[in-house]
Amino acid sequence: MSKPDYMKFLSSKMNFVEPSPIREMVSKIAKKSKETAVVSFAAGDPDPDVIPRKLYAELARKIFEDERRSVIYSPTEGLPELREEIAGFMRKYEQVEADPDTIIVTGGGSQAIDLIGKLMLEPGDIVIVENPSYVNTILDWRQYGIKLIGVPMDEHGLKTDVLEETIRRLRSEGKFAKLIYTIPTGQNPSGLTMSMDRRRHLMELASKYDLLIVEDGAYNYLVYEQLNVKPLKSMDEENRVIFVGSFSKVLGTGLRVGWLNLPGELVNLFKAVKGPSDMCPPVPSQFIVLEVLRAGLFEEIRSNAVKSYKEKRDIMLNAIAKHLTGLKHTKPVAGMFIFLWLPNHLDGWRIAEEALEKYSVATIPGAPFFTDGSGKNTLRLNFSMAPLDQIEKGVEKLSKLIK
Amino acid sequence: MSKPDYMKFLSSKMNFVEPSPIREMVSKIAKKSKETAVVSFAAGDPDPDVIPRKLYAELARKIFEDERRSVIYSPTEGLPELREEIAGFMRKYEQVEADPDTIIVTGGGSQAIDLIGKLMLEPGDIVIVENPSYVNTILDWRQYGIKLIGVPMDEHGLKTDVLEETIRRLRSEGKFAKLIYTIPTGQNPSGLTMSMDRRRHLMELASKYDLLIVEDGAYNYLVYEQLNVKPLKSMDEENRVIFVGSFSKVLGTGLRVGWLNLPGELVNLFKAVKGPSDMCPPVPSQFIVLEVLRAGLFEEIRSNAVKSYKEKRDIMLNAIAKHLTGLKHTKPVAGMFIFLWLPNHLDGWRIAEEALEKYSVATIPGAPFFTDGSGKNTLRLNFSMAPLDQIEKGVEKLSKLIK
Repeated sequence: MSKPDYMKFLSSKMNFVEPSPIREMVSKIAKKSKETAVVSFAAGDPDPDVIPRKLYAELARKIFEDERRSVIYSPTEGLPELREEIAGFMRKYEQVEADPDTIIVTGGGSQAIDLIGKLMLEPGDIVIVENPSYVNTILDWRQYGIKLIGVPMDEHGLKTDVLEETIRRLRSEGKFAKLIYTIPTGQNPSGLTMSMDRRRHLMELASKYDLLIVEDGAYNYLVYEQLNVKPLKSMDEENRVIFVGSFSKVLGTGLRVGWLNLPGELVNLFKAVKGPSDMCPPVPSQFIVLEVLRAGLFEEIRSNAVKSYKEKRDIMLNAIAKHLTGLKHTKPVAGMFIFLWLPNHLDGWRIAEEALEKYSVATIPGAPFFTDGSGKNTLRLNFSMAPLDQIEKGVEKLSKLIK
Repeated sequence: MSKPDYMKFLSSKMNFVEPSPIREMVSKIAKKSKETAVVSFAAGDPDPDVIPRKLYAELARKIFEDERRSVIYSPTEGLPELREEIAGFMRKYEQVEADPDTIIVTGGGSQAIDLIGKLMLEPGDIVIVENPSYVNTILDWRQYGIKLIGVPMDEHGLKTDVLEETIRRLRSEGKFAKLIYTIPTGQNPSGLTMSMDRRRHLMELASKYDLLIVEDGAYNYLVYEQLNVKPLKSMDEENRVIFVGSFSKVLGTGLRVGWLNLPGELVNLFKAVKGPSDMCPPVPSQFIVLEVLRAGLFEEIRSNAVKSYKEKRDIMLNAIAKHLTGLKHTKPVAGMFIFLWLPNHLDGWRIAEEALEKYSVATIPGAPFFTDGSGKNTLRLNFSMAPLDQIEKGVEKLSKLIK
């Protein structure tokens, strides 16, 4: 009787698999939360009390009672009516005339991003992302063996001039970038939003250098100021943008409903990859989103969320100005996050761990979001989750550690 | 202005991506169903009227109202309480003492199977499956570039003597099989169940030849006769079995809740692969399953399903005996399918297409389930979905075509 040597049965892919440092921190937070009340600036979740759970309770009751299809498989690309509604949604919220046949419903934006990796990326491929960028996209695509190149941002978002230099340098080395991944609005983790000039420049570069862009619109519906920007997909005359949409940040991350709006040429390939790997997105969740969209309730839910998170953002920004005077941080006009630079000699990991241990304040270190090992002195602060009256106290406690 | 050449942006993986022929047939059926009433022997779904949708309506109402966690992310491995319940479920239904830490909740069995592929399989790998086997596992794992070897079955299930010959032959060629994939109970598509002797032999071979086994237990809870068999996982003294569990066939395929019961050594790797690719399984669905298990309602739901499908199975078997006299077919003691061999000169695809067109009877050709291009004269008949009073008529119509 002997145990197998499991290593022998794994693929070389496991060389690219890293456990998520964020998940590790999230586990520590969960553990701490069992012992005491924790003020959370950590998660990327909406406030469960802003989500209209009573409405969902009523919708779910009706859906299960009336809809036989709620408990069996839907098509892998999602319920046909939901894809129609999402096409209409793309018109209204993204200024994109989307054919429903180019919409594939996914298990949140995450599955959409993974499907892109699955079909398009392989060892040695180069992908360009904002530096810092969303840690789960970084970890997921790294599992496909790719090399990430990070391009810096400033207050106008991605520095497209540096992007152009990077692409030219790659060309001169005989290489090319498979994809440019960007979260142009309310970026995770930085909270930055790309200006309209930069967006135009990015689209020009895509055409000039024959690039494909993945536009992650996860935060597009949490916007707190009048923005004069358009989605990249709405400027996409050459069909170079794969749009990743998500209802998670407004309707709830737990539902797991997002979508892909694809160039028509890629639809059947994506369906073929997706079909056997998941059968279909969760069907009760699909019906809840469908009913919300059909009843025209999304806008009300969205504006409630925006009102709540805007207030929380302002409280957090004021608390930072008051208690962390002089520290560099972003001032987000969209999204869920403020990004904070600690004094250079401080380590974000240690501050995050000590804040949790000593003061029961949960934050996420910024370092895992960077592609190049930099950002050791950064923290990501979420402002959507914590109760209104705890935000200033939380920031004040953080400041005690930092000073 | 020019469109990109998308081919340039795809990975070599696309060489392994095949559109599912089943999905194509399912689309045709969906189209036909819009025109006229179709008797469906096609889908692998439970009967939506056997699923306790009123109970789910009530549970969902309470969950959304009372449970703040219902709308935000759960851990990627699933809700801790649900993993506890599944461990208890493994004890009760699978005779396995499972540590909750070795349970990962997945988006149905399909995601479990895809995760296995993602972490373990790469181009050139050899995987052994029953011939015929589940078409979505075949298509999904082929996307990882593997070579499938099919081992035939008889009325006692997988022919383990042929399996041993196959493994020896591979060894003599300096090759080995990464995984042995089996659906030992109520196999899809054949409806066959592996005998206890064969199960013991399979476990002996696993030990003798250092094999890993993936046991797909999707149909384990739809058993219509007294069976004297044990799950492979319950005999797994050397930790060589990865168990893929699913609530889909009893609680509903639309929920998308399944699980992996893994050797402890593999748990963290699976979590690391899963985390960034899906964040978590659908949370409202997880809570519904949790409440069903906690309230001890699974057994009642299961026995109602078994009672209904057993009756339907008997009606279909009788109809086949009466109208398709002399044709070879399986007599399932578990699962959802009867497998039918047409006269040699008939093509399953053509019969399935004509049955749909002429008689509005939907079936699935058996050929895509075979690993070696054989089985062209076979059909898979589902008996769980069609209403009781339409089964005989459907079989009678089929018989008109076949004769």
